[in-house]
Amino acid sequence: VSDFQANAPARRPGGRAATVVANVHRAASELLNEVGYDAFQLTEVAARAGVNKTTVYRRWPTKGDLVSDLLLSLTDHDPLDGSQGDLQSALVALLREVIDSLRMPLMQAVLRASLDGAIDPDVRSNFWAMRMERSSGIIVQAIDGGLLPPTTNARSVLEQAASPIYFRQFVTGESITDEDLHTFARRAIETARADH
Amino acid sequence: VSDFQANAPARRPGGRAATVVANVHRAASELLNEVGYDAFQLTEVAARAGVNKTTVYRRWPTKGDLVSDLLLSLTDHDPLDGSQGDLQSALVALLREVIDSLRMPLMQAVLRASLDGAIDPDVRSNFWAMRMERSSGIIVQAIDGGLLPPTTNARSVLEQAASPIYFRQFVTGESITDEDLHTFARRAIETARADH
Repeated sequence: VSDFQANAPARRPGGRAATVVANVHRAASELLNEVGYDAFQLTEVAARAGVNKTTVYRRWPTKGDLVSDLLLSLTDHDPLDGSQGDLQSALVALLREVIDSLRMPLMQAVLRASLDGAIDPDVRSNFWAMRMERSSGIIVQAIDGGLLPPTTNARSVLEQAASPIYFRQFVTGESITDEDLHTFARRAIETARADH
Repeated sequence: VSDFQANAPARRPGGRAATVVANVHRAASELLNEVGYDAFQLTEVAARAGVNKTTVYRRWPTKGDLVSDLLLSLTDHDPLDGSQGDLQSALVALLREVIDSLRMPLMQAVLRASLDGAIDPDVRSNFWAMRMERSSGIIVQAIDGGLLPPTTNARSVLEQAASPIYFRQFVTGESITDEDLHTFARRAIETARADH
C-alpha cells in the first residue's frame, strides 16, 4: 500500500510528507463538510486520502488534532505583508479573514462541536493558542516599529478586536459592516496604547 | 378547562395573567432543559402548565417568542441599584450575570439553536435588542450622571464589554477571572469616553 495517490508527484525533494499532509487535509475537509464532526473518523480520512492508517495516526493521534491542524493550515499567513506599516489596516485585514473563516462549514462544524463539549479541552485550547500565535505577527511587528508599547499582550489585542465578530456572528446574528471592523480594530489599538 | 393550576392563587388582583405567565415560563424552562430547542413544542408546554393552548398561542405565537420572553424574564433587573455611582463596578456586576446566564442549560440550548439557524432571525434579533435595552440602564444612568459622554451608544458599550466573555466561553474555552471582568469593563468605559 502506497502513501501516495496516483496523481501525486512522486519525487519532488521533501515532497513526500507535504503530499501526505495535503491529501489528508483535503480528505478531512471533504469528510467534515459531509458528515460533521461527530461522525468524522480518522480511518475514513485515511481511506479517502489513500494514505496508511498508521501514517495518519502517527501524525494526528486524534480527530481533534487533525481538524485543528487543518484549520490552522487554512489561516497560516501574515496579513501585514500587504499593508506594511499601517497597523489598523493590517488588523482590519485580519478581521476580514476571521469573517471569511467563520463562513466555512468546516469552522462552523468545529464551533458546534466545541459548544457540545465534543472536542478535547486540551486540543481546543492548543488550537486557539496556536491560531492566536500565528496571527500575532502583526502585533509583534507593530511593537518592533514602535507603534505599540513593548508590554503589549498580542493575544489580548487580537481577542479584543475579534470577539465582537464572533459575538455578532454566533450570538446576536447582527450584521457586520466594514466600518464596524475599523471600529473594532481602532479600539483594540487604542486600548493597547492606553493599557501599557 | 381552567388556566390555573390547582395551587395557584385564584383571586389576587391582576394575578391571573401573571400566574399564567409564571406557570408557562416554568413549564417551558423544564421542557427546554429536558428535550432541547428542536423538540420543544408549545402544545406540550401548555399541557404541562395546565393552560389552554389558545392562551399560550395568543401570547407567544411561536416557540421562539416564548423562549425569548423566558430568557428576558430571567435577566430583568438593573444591577446598578447595588453599586450606585460606580460605573465600573456596575458593569462588572452585569458581566457576572452574563457568565451566570451562559451556565444555564436554557441559554446553551438557545445558542445551539441559533448556531443551527433554528431560531427565526427576527425573533433572535428582537431578543437581543430587548436584552441589550434592558441592560442599558446602567449606561443611561452613567450618561445622566456625567460619567459618560451624552453621545454614548449603550449597546456598543455592552457589546464591547460582554463579547470577550462569549468568545472565551463558546469559542476558545479559556477561563475568565474576576480581573478579566474588570479589564473588559474598564476598556469598554475608556473606549466610550474616547469615542464620543
